[in-house]
Amino acid sequence: MFTCTGYAATAADARLAPFTFERRDPGPTDVQIDIHYCGVCHSDLHQARNEWRNTVFPCVPGHEIVGIVRAVGTEVTKYSVGDRVGVGCMVDSCRECPSCKAGLEQYCEPGARFTYNSPEADGKGHTFGGYSRQIVVDQDFVLRVPDSIDFAAAAPLLCAGITTWSPLRRWKVGPGQKVGIVGLGGLGHMGVKFAVALGAEVTLFTTSESKVADGKRLGAHRVVISRDSAAMAAEANSFDFILDAVSANHDINAYLACLKLDGTLVQVGAPEDPLPVSVFGLLMKRRSFAGSLIGGIGETQEMLDFCGEHGITCDVEMIRMDEINEAYERMLKSDVKYRFVIDMATLPDAA
Amino acid sequence: MFTCTGYAATAADARLAPFTFERRDPGPTDVQIDIHYCGVCHSDLHQARNEWRNTVFPCVPGHEIVGIVRAVGTEVTKYSVGDRVGVGCMVDSCRECPSCKAGLEQYCEPGARFTYNSPEADGKGHTFGGYSRQIVVDQDFVLRVPDSIDFAAAAPLLCAGITTWSPLRRWKVGPGQKVGIVGLGGLGHMGVKFAVALGAEVTLFTTSESKVADGKRLGAHRVVISRDSAAMAAEANSFDFILDAVSANHDINAYLACLKLDGTLVQVGAPEDPLPVSVFGLLMKRRSFAGSLIGGIGETQEMLDFCGEHGITCDVEMIRMDEINEAYERMLKSDVKYRFVIDMATLPDAA
Repeated sequence: MFTCTGYAATAADARLAPFTFERRDPGPTDVQIDIHYCGVCHSDLHQARNEWRNTVFPCVPGHEIVGIVRAVGTEVTKYSVGDRVGVGCMVDSCRECPSCKAGLEQYCEPGARFTYNSPEADGKGHTFGGYSRQIVVDQDFVLRVPDSIDFAAAAPLLCAGITTWSPLRRWKVGPGQKVGIVGLGGLGHMGVKFAVALGAEVTLFTTSESKVADGKRLGAHRVVISRDSAAMAAEANSFDFILDAVSANHDINAYLACLKLDGTLVQVGAPEDPLPVSVFGLLMKRRSFAGSLIGGIGETQEMLDFCGEHGITCDVEMIRMDEINEAYERMLKSDVKYRFVIDMATLPDAA
Repeated sequence: MFTCTGYAATAADARLAPFTFERRDPGPTDVQIDIHYCGVCHSDLHQARNEWRNTVFPCVPGHEIVGIVRAVGTEVTKYSVGDRVGVGCMVDSCRECPSCKAGLEQYCEPGARFTYNSPEADGKGHTFGGYSRQIVVDQDFVLRVPDSIDFAAAAPLLCAGITTWSPLRRWKVGPGQKVGIVGLGGLGHMGVKFAVALGAEVTLFTTSESKVADGKRLGAHRVVISRDSAAMAAEANSFDFILDAVSANHDINAYLACLKLDGTLVQVGAPEDPLPVSVFGLLMKRRSFAGSLIGGIGETQEMLDFCGEHGITCDVEMIRMDEINEAYERMLKSDVKYRFVIDMATLPDAA
């Protein structure tokens, strides 16, 4: 074991603060990573504040991790010291269930081991995430970050990126398709970039006039203000696919009505309350309403490679580690374009 | 024009009663049909009572029609006098939109012409359905009823049959799949028969202990009482496909939770109120919630041919035309196994 510093919530109502803890020394197949940057996901806030009622404290959040390999175990073949690597939402899975064998570790039947707040493999304690100096992860759950993309701006690809990439690929979004992205936040802005890069005609739906220009800058071919009911009505029956990245409760039927025959709307944001769905709206055009959860390890690497080839990264705002509590408050107000990333060089050496 | 007798509702609160009206003489591509039997669909009741707020009175319901060809127009090539034929929910469509060209006339973009309560092609008046002596329909919307199946019991195939057949085919239900059918009524009992005949392992979900034996008689391999929460929990994550034929409001999340990874639940019943859907339930297993509306003309013929080959018909209870009002009341109490069919020989000759 070695001592690691980080930032943790010690209770649901506590501010995140410096925290010292133990990590395992790298085993034969482990990669030990010096964390350079860690993105700030809304899930971090949910878990730090125990809003999903399953947090084990102390909680070190963070699952949008990029860093440099510091050491590797004796059997590690995939990575070498000095490599640019990333770690996303998962650090292990059962590897034997049909989901794992299909490369869909995020749907591991016994449950994937998540990067933080999951039981540790040895049964002692729970996982600690990326708001920390280092992390030790099995090589099979480490991703390679292309040299060609900015390191800090790559960090949110590990969650916001793959969460939007995976459904766009699963539902085969590409040229000739009319695609909608609902909401321009951490997820939505990546949805726009990816759908455009995959060749679709992309429409951004946003509640906010102030995001029209930014939506177009990010590549959206059209922007529709979703509060404008006449503008929404004009979009009826015209979309092949809609990716909905809104986590707040909202009128999903207004977007389902925009789908053409056999169109699919996939929700990647997770509103807390059930969304009322008009069954007539579904059956009159044989529409589907689906959900999608992050992505598998293989497709995360595919996405990172695609980002390397196409020069895609996230739009980020860098913060110091000690600004994390303020960043959470700003995130609650959607006051970030479009993802906070913590510069881990600002983490104090000892708690 | 010729004079036709039938039964009509003249107002939302009126009982159905004898009614005399005009039908067009058969044009060059028309088939004139002597109606022998007409099934009674819940939609008939909804429309006779203006529950969808779009009924034009007088309303002659009925879209589960079988009969014998009495005459054909000069250009009719598909049918001859004496043929056993059927007419379902549609009597025409635009034939030019992408849906029509794809054989999905039920999703015709300008809107299919429905068998009753749709504007007539000549702009004068509206269509009258199968609670009548005869009907005149373009040959392209007439179906052939195999000789090998009982005529009266074939009638509900034209709506209840195709409505369940179409999604089972669209989602490729077959051997090796675990399929659920929710609700054992007019639609559900056909869903069970078709899913079994297509080779799936079929589980019927019903609220009623009294339907267990009947479910098994109809071919279901297993029956789960959906009011039993422990029994429902045991079904979690195990179904490839679920066809939900319940039109009443119900807890859809209990069934969505039964789907395995990438499973789909298709609603063919149409509850009046929006159904609250747990987004977490969808995204944790990348599940889809979809709807499906009747079926196209081509696949209706495919379904009838399949029924001929496999000896499949509906379980019906024959009624006289003058029992229709009582039948509606019994239908509201689900007191029918599993579809009423009107013997059109009991229709009085004049109103």
